[in-house]
Amino acid sequence: MTRRELAGMIDHTFLKPDGDGNAVKDLCREVAEFGFACAMVHPCEVKNAVRFLRGTGCRVGTVIGFPLGQNTAKTKAAEAAEAVKNGARDVDFVFNRRLLKAAAAGNGTAQKELARELEALAEVKACADGVVAKIILECCELTDDEKIVACVAAKEAGFDFVKTSTGFGRGGATAEDVRLMREAVGPAMGVKAAGGIRDWETARALLAAGANRLGCSAGVKILQECDGIRA
Amino acid sequence: MTRRELAGMIDHTFLKPDGDGNAVKDLCREVAEFGFACAMVHPCEVKNAVRFLRGTGCRVGTVIGFPLGQNTAKTKAAEAAEAVKNGARDVDFVFNRRLLKAAAAGNGTAQKELARELEALAEVKACADGVVAKIILECCELTDDEKIVACVAAKEAGFDFVKTSTGFGRGGATAEDVRLMREAVGPAMGVKAAGGIRDWETARALLAAGANRLGCSAGVKILQECDGIRA
Repeated sequence: MTRRELAGMIDHTFLKPDGDGNAVKDLCREVAEFGFACAMVHPCEVKNAVRFLRGTGCRVGTVIGFPLGQNTAKTKAAEAAEAVKNGARDVDFVFNRRLLKAAAAGNGTAQKELARELEALAEVKACADGVVAKIILECCELTDDEKIVACVAAKEAGFDFVKTSTGFGRGGATAEDVRLMREAVGPAMGVKAAGGIRDWETARALLAAGANRLGCSAGVKILQECDGIRA
Repeated sequence: MTRRELAGMIDHTFLKPDGDGNAVKDLCREVAEFGFACAMVHPCEVKNAVRFLRGTGCRVGTVIGFPLGQNTAKTKAAEAAEAVKNGARDVDFVFNRRLLKAAAAGNGTAQKELARELEALAEVKACADGVVAKIILECCELTDDEKIVACVAAKEAGFDFVKTSTGFGRGGATAEDVRLMREAVGPAMGVKAAGGIRDWETARALLAAGANRLGCSAGVKILQECDGIRA
């Protein structure tokens, strides 16, 4: 794997609600310089990121219903459609995990509601060419059974990726969760690891476990460490 | 102050993204029993809460752009309008604090954008009779100057309350912040203290500092403690 290939598997991420006024601009500059998969920013920063990346061919991504996922399906779908209209092409949705837990426990109404919500959200793919839709699970709060139910439902609804964590929960990505999710969705669907990925060693372990996308703010450091190790 | 008057100053709150399937039902039962100001739930639970409280005359409240506030103004306005349509009458908006910080630092564009965003959000009051609109500041992340700028802007935009915290940040309500906010908005506007209010002693201190609304999940316990102390 080349450095460029590794960068292409990293969603370069800035999701702090505070931070320097130049944070999004700096993030976008690094996305263009290193060839990251996208600049992942909050919905209110999508237009800015798109402006900073104009002419580079680089992608902008955003998060929907972030980080708790307790919005209505209608609000999440509308937020996603607006983000795509504003130029986002990677769209990471936070799951409604209260609904998921009820569905995984066998509640038939919740199962139907879950399927309907996922179908409604996956429709963001029809808003523009090249939209990549991911569903965020917050694995640290779920049982293995709940993770599997979520992965299967997301696959059936037509999502492109399942993602381990928001990065705002009590825990982040683990190799065990990535392995479980990869097994649940098979080889064709994407698995994105996110949350607490701060160095190349962690990144390598998650890729080895089956992740094909990483979400982190430490992308530049990870690329440098990877070069150092291989040099 | 009677027990009923105290209850009427408490937004009885359930904002966990997990929790028991009966949590919202139990919350609503307690709102009706004790006469709390409203049942405060996530947007995806508004319809349920409205159903549980039908015929009681009790209010339902919800949170918008919660808890980070990094959605677009358009998404927040649409989420609020949907919530009011679904029956919510208390609507607590999370401020975009990146925008606020830039505005408070003297950035003219940010100041205009902030005013526009607040005006757009305050329009939720026109969606139905009796809507009470609150703006949530997350005081633990703001300087005193930033808090004052936010309070003045919220008052000018026509909000009914300024609120100290989401309860999901690093810190909750403090008497110092309530005092500062009360001074900034004057006696006619509401000040809601929220975050970490777990007993009557804390509640009393916040009311004494100038709060006229409390947001917490410990409302029943606080009423009982208050009775015990006064008995």
